[in-house]
Amino acid sequence: MMVVERIREVRQRVREARTQGRRIGFVPTMGALHAGHVSLIRAARADGGFVVVSIFVNPAQFDDGRDLEAYPRPLEDDLEVCTREGVDLVFAPKREEMCPDGPKTTVRVPGMSETMCGAFRPGHFDGVCTVVAKLFAIVQPDVAYFGEKDAQQLAIVRRMAADLNLPVEVRGCPLIRDTDGLATSSRNVYLSDQDRRRALALSRALLEARDAVVGGERDAGKLADAVRRQLADAEGVETEYVAVVDPDTLDDLECVAENVLVAAAVRVGTTRLIDNVLLRDLGERGGGG
Amino acid sequence: MMVVERIREVRQRVREARTQGRRIGFVPTMGALHAGHVSLIRAARADGGFVVVSIFVNPAQFDDGRDLEAYPRPLEDDLEVCTREGVDLVFAPKREEMCPDGPKTTVRVPGMSETMCGAFRPGHFDGVCTVVAKLFAIVQPDVAYFGEKDAQQLAIVRRMAADLNLPVEVRGCPLIRDTDGLATSSRNVYLSDQDRRRALALSRALLEARDAVVGGERDAGKLADAVRRQLADAEGVETEYVAVVDPDTLDDLECVAENVLVAAAVRVGTTRLIDNVLLRDLGERGGGG
Repeated sequence: MMVVERIREVRQRVREARTQGRRIGFVPTMGALHAGHVSLIRAARADGGFVVVSIFVNPAQFDDGRDLEAYPRPLEDDLEVCTREGVDLVFAPKREEMCPDGPKTTVRVPGMSETMCGAFRPGHFDGVCTVVAKLFAIVQPDVAYFGEKDAQQLAIVRRMAADLNLPVEVRGCPLIRDTDGLATSSRNVYLSDQDRRRALALSRALLEARDAVVGGERDAGKLADAVRRQLADAEGVETEYVAVVDPDTLDDLECVAENVLVAAAVRVGTTRLIDNVLLRDLGERGGGG
Repeated sequence: MMVVERIREVRQRVREARTQGRRIGFVPTMGALHAGHVSLIRAARADGGFVVVSIFVNPAQFDDGRDLEAYPRPLEDDLEVCTREGVDLVFAPKREEMCPDGPKTTVRVPGMSETMCGAFRPGHFDGVCTVVAKLFAIVQPDVAYFGEKDAQQLAIVRRMAADLNLPVEVRGCPLIRDTDGLATSSRNVYLSDQDRRRALALSRALLEARDAVVGGERDAGKLADAVRRQLADAEGVETEYVAVVDPDTLDDLECVAENVLVAAAVRVGTTRLIDNVLLRDLGERGGGG
């Protein structure tokens, strides 16, 4: 496995792989790799291409300087994971390599970036879009793999890639849960045992919403209210938002039709957690209610 | 010469050229091709690559709907020019191909986009950056050629390409003047004979500023004042701005050192005209004052 810090060297390695007729699969990460990331790497591996993983804690997507400083950076562990999973190339740039004198140019998807998490993290998705546009330009992947855990990010990055005609397929991969139901996240390490138990209210409420939709519930307001109620009843859990939206446009739904994303963000202690359930092609399943 | 309307077909043709080992030279235009555009095409031809010219009147960079409607679109003439100049591929997309349901994603370079012309054309450079980012992603050129006539646009596009790590060299080509001194522009066709005579005050004032710099003048304020005074004295010429700036950052200069851009915008009748003089590497010429 190659580990490189320089943009120039990434381009060189990718060009070599392409010359050998290989397609490029790309998994952009902020490191602190967990089972969710591993699932993305495995999806890329399964597609048979040259697999590039980037590890870069992007300052532009943090609205809180302390959060940025505290964000876990276990590079050695991450490289072990990448080696074990058969990654071909890790791009782990220093901050100066990615933002030489602070990025001036900004890529943004208005509207979609201001709802849900965007309402609580001003500028966050602009930072995401800008760094992903940069990484796409550096790696020039054929396929990029993003977790459905960050459903809003996935929708926004997809929209950006389509709007800007970027020659990359943005592929979503299923959210991965720990055995207790908690969605895997690099931030879970912040949770005390008690907070982790409390946090389970989030996945419980969302999984019940999923069951309700599967059972035929089509009233978005009722779905959202049920999740909100459960979170309100949970001790030590403070709700930021509960949204029932179209997973591609992030528009609020009144009535669930083909596709639905039920997403929520909470704070447990000082840790912010997000989770969601995503259902597609409901019409074909013949659910009604 | 191939003329295509579809993004998919551009990608296909460019891929074929690349497979033949050719580099891709790209001249993005809004059509109404004049001697300035021809100089860009010739620069691209001289570099020996596969030359792609795009012709697309980008709605997103017009702040005035009437200006957009009135903008000249002599496609047949333009294709003749391209054929004569040995262009390999013309990409002339319909509006729906470039903006299927209105572009949501925006690329912007804050700061540089709000000064000079940006102060008078709100949103203009965001529209430019977004469409150029799209065209770069579609054509994937090795080198893109831009006129120094649009000096602010060139500086902003360069900054965008650098910030977003786009794998393209943005090359500036000298401004082209008609024999009477007027900078070539697609908008010159709007000028009546009288307005055209009046418009010459703009190039005269700027060329005198250039002579002053060459003669040793280093006081940016004096240079700007002299241009402003000349334009104020010219009949039928209304000044929008006169700027003496660093040509790469567009920061105002107090004192001219290595590089300087003296740029101005005026209105003559209903026509908006811009012009500039650009001097680089002044230190090496040994000018002082």
